Amino acid sequence: MHRAVRLLARSRRLVRPLGSASAPGLGGAPVLPLRVPHAAGMIPVIKAFGILKRAAAEVNQDYGLDSKLASAIMKAADEVAEGKLNDHFPLVVWQTGSGTQTNMNVNEVISNRAIEMLGGELGSKKPVHPNDHVNKSQSSNDTFPTAMHIAAALEVHEVLLPGLQKLHDALEAKSQEFAEVIKIGRTHTQDAVPLTLGQEFSGYVQQVKYAVARIRAAMPRIYELAAGGTAVGTGLNTRIGFAEKVAAKVAALTGLPFVTAPNKFEALAAHDALVELSGAMNTTACSLMKIANDIRFLGSGPRSGLGELILPENEPGSSIMPGKVNPTQCEALTMVAAQVMGNHVAVTVGGSNGHFELNVFKPMMIKNVLHSARLLGDACVSFTENCVVGIQANTERINKLMSESLMLVTALNPHIGYDKAAKIAKTAHKNGSTLKATAIELGYLTAEQFDEWVKPKDMLGPK
Amino acid sequence: MHRAVRLLARSRRLVRPLGSASAPGLGGAPVLPLRVPHAAGMIPVIKAFGILKRAAAEVNQDYGLDSKLASAIMKAADEVAEGKLNDHFPLVVWQTGSGTQTNMNVNEVISNRAIEMLGGELGSKKPVHPNDHVNKSQSSNDTFPTAMHIAAALEVHEVLLPGLQKLHDALEAKSQEFAEVIKIGRTHTQDAVPLTLGQEFSGYVQQVKYAVARIRAAMPRIYELAAGGTAVGTGLNTRIGFAEKVAAKVAALTGLPFVTAPNKFEALAAHDALVELSGAMNTTACSLMKIANDIRFLGSGPRSGLGELILPENEPGSSIMPGKVNPTQCEALTMVAAQVMGNHVAVTVGGSNGHFELNVFKPMMIKNVLHSARLLGDACVSFTENCVVGIQANTERINKLMSESLMLVTALNPHIGYDKAAKIAKTAHKNGSTLKATAIELGYLTAEQFDEWVKPKDMLGPK
Amino acid sequence: MHRAVRLLARSRRLVRPLGSASAPGLGGAPVLPLRVPHAAGMIPVIKAFGILKRAAAEVNQDYGLDSKLASAIMKAADEVAEGKLNDHFPLVVWQTGSGTQTNMNVNEVISNRAIEMLGGELGSKKPVHPNDHVNKSQSSNDTFPTAMHIAAALEVHEVLLPGLQKLHDALEAKSQEFAEVIKIGRTHTQDAVPLTLGQEFSGYVQQVKYAVARIRAAMPRIYELAAGGTAVGTGLNTRIGFAEKVAAKVAALTGLPFVTAPNKFEALAAHDALVELSGAMNTTACSLMKIANDIRFLGSGPRSGLGELILPENEPGSSIMPGKVNPTQCEALTMVAAQVMGNHVAVTVGGSNGHFELNVFKPMMIKNVLHSARLLGDACVSFTENCVVGIQANTERINKLMSESLMLVTALNPHIGYDKAAKIAKTAHKNGSTLKATAIELGYLTAEQFDEWVKPKDMLGPK
Amino acid sequence: MHRAVRLLARSRRLVRPLGSASAPGLGGAPVLPLRVPHAAGMIPVIKAFGILKRAAAEVNQDYGLDSKLASAIMKAADEVAEGKLNDHFPLVVWQTGSGTQTNMNVNEVISNRAIEMLGGELGSKKPVHPNDHVNKSQSSNDTFPTAMHIAAALEVHEVLLPGLQKLHDALEAKSQEFAEVIKIGRTHTQDAVPLTLGQEFSGYVQQVKYAVARIRAAMPRIYELAAGGTAVGTGLNTRIGFAEKVAAKVAALTGLPFVTAPNKFEALAAHDALVELSGAMNTTACSLMKIANDIRFLGSGPRSGLGELILPENEPGSSIMPGKVNPTQCEALTMVAAQVMGNHVAVTVGGSNGHFELNVFKPMMIKNVLHSARLLGDACVSFTENCVVGIQANTERINKLMSESLMLVTALNPHIGYDKAAKIAKTAHKNGSTLKATAIELGYLTAEQFDEWVKPKDMLGPK
Repeated sequence: MHRAVRLLARSRRLVRPLGSASAPGLGGAPVLPLRVPHAAGMIPVIKAFGILKRAAAEVNQDYGLDSKLASAIMKAADEVAEGKLNDHFPLVVWQTGSGTQTNMNVNEVISNRAIEMLGGELGSKKPVHPNDHVNKSQSSNDTFPTAMHIAAALEVHEVLLPGLQKLHDALEAKSQEFAEVIKIGRTHTQDAVPLTLGQEFSGYVQQVKYAVARIRAAMPRIYELAAGGTAVGTGLNTRIGFAEKVAAKVAALTGLPFVTAPNKFEALAAHDALVELSGAMNTTACSLMKIANDIRFLGSGPRSGLGELILPENEPGSSIMPGKVNPTQCEALTMVAAQVMGNHVAVTVGGSNGHFELNVFKPMMIKNVLHSARLLGDACVSFTENCVVGIQANTERINKLMSESLMLVTALNPHIGYDKAAKIAKTAHKNGSTLKATAIELGYLTAEQFDEWVKPKDMLGPK
Repeated sequence: MHRAVRLLARSRRLVRPLGSASAPGLGGAPVLPLRVPHAAGMIPVIKAFGILKRAAAEVNQDYGLDSKLASAIMKAADEVAEGKLNDHFPLVVWQTGSGTQTNMNVNEVISNRAIEMLGGELGSKKPVHPNDHVNKSQSSNDTFPTAMHIAAALEVHEVLLPGLQKLHDALEAKSQEFAEVIKIGRTHTQDAVPLTLGQEFSGYVQQVKYAVARIRAAMPRIYELAAGGTAVGTGLNTRIGFAEKVAAKVAALTGLPFVTAPNKFEALAAHDALVELSGAMNTTACSLMKIANDIRFLGSGPRSGLGELILPENEPGSSIMPGKVNPTQCEALTMVAAQVMGNHVAVTVGGSNGHFELNVFKPMMIKNVLHSARLLGDACVSFTENCVVGIQANTERINKLMSESLMLVTALNPHIGYDKAAKIAKTAHKNGSTLKATAIELGYLTAEQFDEWVKPKDMLGPK
Repeated sequence: MHRAVRLLARSRRLVRPLGSASAPGLGGAPVLPLRVPHAAGMIPVIKAFGILKRAAAEVNQDYGLDSKLASAIMKAADEVAEGKLNDHFPLVVWQTGSGTQTNMNVNEVISNRAIEMLGGELGSKKPVHPNDHVNKSQSSNDTFPTAMHIAAALEVHEVLLPGLQKLHDALEAKSQEFAEVIKIGRTHTQDAVPLTLGQEFSGYVQQVKYAVARIRAAMPRIYELAAGGTAVGTGLNTRIGFAEKVAAKVAALTGLPFVTAPNKFEALAAHDALVELSGAMNTTACSLMKIANDIRFLGSGPRSGLGELILPENEPGSSIMPGKVNPTQCEALTMVAAQVMGNHVAVTVGGSNGHFELNVFKPMMIKNVLHSARLLGDACVSFTENCVVGIQANTERINKLMSESLMLVTALNPHIGYDKAAKIAKTAHKNGSTLKATAIELGYLTAEQFDEWVKPKDMLGPK
Repeated sequence: MHRAVRLLARSRRLVRPLGSASAPGLGGAPVLPLRVPHAAGMIPVIKAFGILKRAAAEVNQDYGLDSKLASAIMKAADEVAEGKLNDHFPLVVWQTGSGTQTNMNVNEVISNRAIEMLGGELGSKKPVHPNDHVNKSQSSNDTFPTAMHIAAALEVHEVLLPGLQKLHDALEAKSQEFAEVIKIGRTHTQDAVPLTLGQEFSGYVQQVKYAVARIRAAMPRIYELAAGGTAVGTGLNTRIGFAEKVAAKVAALTGLPFVTAPNKFEALAAHDALVELSGAMNTTACSLMKIANDIRFLGSGPRSGLGELILPENEPGSSIMPGKVNPTQCEALTMVAAQVMGNHVAVTVGGSNGHFELNVFKPMMIKNVLHSARLLGDACVSFTENCVVGIQANTERINKLMSESLMLVTALNPHIGYDKAAKIAKTAHKNGSTLKATAIELGYLTAEQFDEWVKPKDMLGPK
């Protein structure tokens, strides 16, 4: 621990007696002192606060804040944004529903660090006051939702979208690789007419492509920042133009198109934008659940499953059954999907329960949104690297299943009609014989006709 | 339509101008005049109201209500309970959250029908007044939750539990029928060590058995009736003993062990008992989803799936693919399961949003609980009759898959150790050869040893 | 019932023995013969099928279908689209998960009606065959999802969006009407700094405005039609160009920008687009829950609540408490919101459980999506007409609460500092006195200064 | 770090190259190497594994395992159970869905620690082999669900139930303390007839009492242990009696009534018991949401809210508004409630998606169950200590609201009839006058009659 932080830590012991009933500096002790702390879940919010406080200090300087103070605040805020002071943010999610304690925590850490930089006494609030200077023109009620949006946008851009894109690209490559592999289709989990394995994968590609589109479609409202609304949305105690300038600074600092929210009352009292983003991730979870389920079933076996795909062996699968290989990546991904669906309901319940000028489910909501974004993004990367890229088509098995399939009979419909085709299929099914033998035996057509009419590769598209 | 009902209908046209802004008799027009009416969902509640009003009239007679009036009310209430007057209950779910309009509707229909029986003038409120007589010692706030509990209990006992029991018995019979069918097990959707098909089905039997236990475990709190709490739970304007007597009468009329709720404040302001029952149905939905998924995958094919089960053919499965048979019963059941999971969230959200002395999500909550109970019960019956009882084991296929399985190698662990066993399995897998041939080739054991050690039927239990 | 329909009904009794075990004509009996039928929920899907079958017939005519047959099919399909043949669609949601039975039902009704128009014998399949002609170039697997998307889009445009727009406009009008009404704000449900009632309502306006935007943002993927994918997405047995032409015809018939889905495999195997739309409605439900909760709390009283709003009296509120008026519209709307959140989970679970080339939760998914769209749309209309437009500000009460508020002290921060301001507020709170008297008594400022500095109307925005 | 652990750590670096592609000893690297690790969530599972492995070693000793080895395993397992080796369990939730990697991790740590105790070489697998000795008669497939149930039961008994009981007792005390405080009731959030504050709190007491009952009702199926089922539920490679003995040992070690699961197939392939327990916690979440919402609304103010309760001031509530006190404990509790509802959906989705002989959503499911149990338990303690015990009745405010209430008019119903009573209430409401003055003015009764008939304390129960 470098000196500054150590000193800060010492200082903070003075001003923030953790677990004490009275903790004026920090807005009280954590409301819910969980035995298993979850402070980690708040780190991206702390980072976002660093960005916001830096931006606010710059704007406050424009509006007259002493530039020495502003400069120190900016530097300290940068350290917060860079994660250098993470140890000083012990607060868990389960605090006040406005995140007030986190905002106060941030104000105080930044002021103390700025004081330290300026050679002042830690805890003295001089020359940098946490409320009067660091929190200038701000309130917990507008800074916390601003930090929520910044954190969500960064997580989406840094983790979720790259993860989805990586998965998309890998699936796309597989779809092309498997373009010529003709296989049996399955509807109702039952044998159906053929398609190529590439076509099958193209459905997954489309799902992930649209997942990206859905996430992107939710972002415009995430880019809207509450900053400038202060306590209830009116902007009391701020300056005209402050909101717009802060949003512009945040945009410049992050490279993302943040703007000031057109209506600050909505931005404080409702978090529909987060429910919306969570909904997009919920849809993504459905897509990924489908894809992972397909891949594990298509890769099931090695002998008594469908066996059309060969999945990479990443680890021994069983402590009792030697030689067993399990689709662990699919399992991790589907567990993540289930978690995201659950997180979405938590976000929904929180989002629906705001009252009057403030929604007070803020920390819980952003925690779940960030959790979903990170889980999905990380899981996509892991699934791609450890599973998708290594998937091989078991062409021998695929060919065997396809050539035995009764559903090729569909190709006969235009030639001998639905009823006779059905008769062939049912008879072959009953007798365990092939379509060809049965068709000839029933006298519906000749061997030559069968070979000419039943060509799987002619069944892969419209004519 | 018999005369009385017709006359009632005429009377009601006078007193209840549906869709009009002022509808004093009925407590106003339906709040939400849905274009697609959902009045049907409320029928069991109306029936329950009939039972309650009959019971209340009996008790009111004990406390001094004129026996001529009481008797007429009882007869009219019986008709409501029997469904004879269903046409007179047009109210949808989406009314006031206390169900006040439905209670008023019931009071009015019963008073009018009683008036008619007594030769009075419809709509005159004489000699039977809807509020003073039919609703005596009652309030919407205690009658509606009472009717909710009666309706839920009846639906559980008449539809849900019989349906689950029927499914249980059919699965139990199949489990015994398949007791000797040794098959490959599957874990992680991958090949695993063997078990019998009967053992596999015994897991389903256990799930359904516990589903029954779970539903039953939720009932004690459903049997508690709010009647006697009147407006806020205090029992204002009732008589001491009224609550207990009404519960006893309802118990006698239904044959179910209803009692008066020990705390009426809870009984009006919270509907935790319905959330609890919905939770038990949610668990049941998970069980049924698992069972139906297994059965459709085990029955997948006819040639390119797992093919271990032969499911009954109930209908042609495809309009384009002749001979296709689909697991439609599994599909209906899993759709029902998904619906029940959704209904459960609606009930949860409603149950969490009560305020002060009254929860005002009552009609929505009971609608979803009844929907889930009926769907699950009906679906179990349909699934049993049209699928389970007709399931056959495809023993040829089952034997083939089992004998080819690499996982039988596990039986060698105690004899040659985990590492050599793994080597055999992996080598056989790689070469596409049998375990036996590979084991001998690797020099780990003799053919005789293999046959002695690897006996699937010796792998079905502890030693 | 006009003659044609009566005849059809007679015909159908012959070909579709409802409840019978074998129902070849219709694809079997309904899988789950619910005692309380829910066929009504499928009506918009049937209408959509009418549109689709009409479009397909037109395109099939272009590709060579006899124009006499095509013309009869088109007319019959139009009747289906117009709802004239609704009685002939008895199928419930809980059928096969692909909706095959509904597609077969539609094919058969249209063929019979067309046969009737052409003077043929009902049930003869001549000259219009249900499969060969009505279902030409189609499969249940692509027609049902096509009908799902058409139905969803129509419901959104005909019910949901107009309902939201109506609510938006009414809230907007109220926001302007209340632009000058200064009131106390509330954060954490506690007293906070002032805002105008118009500002408070502007937050609701923004929420509903964005609800419209969110629904619209989900539509592009709903406009994509699966038609042309036939059984597994390849388009087997269709003609090149069929898919595009059908989508164009449907677009022309509906006036909505339908296009053919770029990837038919995704369009059959996943219904992410419906999960997405459901997610947008879930977000909308959160918004409406928030608005309705605020309005009922702000309108609570008449004497012991917040009492800032006067809500319209639509009906007597209590069967026991005279003079009571309840916020029934808010209750109906919040119940609807809870239902939509539940429906969303059902859609999510269904959407995540597709396998291989087909998702088989189709009827359940579309039923819930349509239910949510209609409920939300209808509830918005009812809430607007019966509540929002009649809301009045109780200005007397509003003024009283605001003038007594301790939170006006915030205006003193820039003048006397946070600590002294806090002292004034705490002292006044403790003594039950006014801010002004307390401030003077503490010697922090003069009466003149107080009046100059504490002006609620100066606290409504940035400076 | 004491020597043993340090050595272990060194050893483990050799045998478990974290992040490496091949990690044979540990069953591979964590499947999903989350950047923000969540290993903490698995700690109670690790502890439970310690208990299980100790019990299994004891039983294995009975069946012939060398007592020196058994003894060392037991001691090492005890250290795991005591949390002494937590640092050696780096695995996150998002691994294989069977928890195989965690079981292997446990086997290996215990074997290495036992080896160390016996003076052997770390990593040598001698004399204590992780698979052959520590995992003897076990499989990941039965040990992980066994550990899940042990962990869940311990968390319920150590955190959840004590937390609920503490809250119950505090609410019960408040209910008695407030037994004589007569206040206005509120239904539909509107003024209603009176009750005592003690009665109001008694509803909360009942809710929490039933929450305890619900949790307890779910436990019998949690007490059932899968141990002895090994790979697929058959008990292959175990000894007759092993399952029963292990359950008995675990019961002895924990003091909880664990038994062997009557059906091991269900115990591996489904986790309905966890869905059930999660459902009980979901119901509890609804109860707590209701209670916390009531308390924050009843405590709203200080001047412009309902103001009937005075909540403890735990921290300054606002960074901009001096003197503001917020119901932070209520906010934390309602956030927890929302989270539990979300966790429940994740558990539900996972629980519904098992296939064949194994459910592979195990780590995700238990993580959410444990999360919910701990959150609810901790939140109850915090809410009790920091809020409930300090709640005071604002009797002055309560009396004022009650005496002004129009709903006392209900007391006149039996004397002057519903219609006249309603007239009084409506007239008083219109004129802003008192009931008494209005009643006299309307000539319906005398002042003496009013005083005699309208006595709030006579309105608190049946007569």
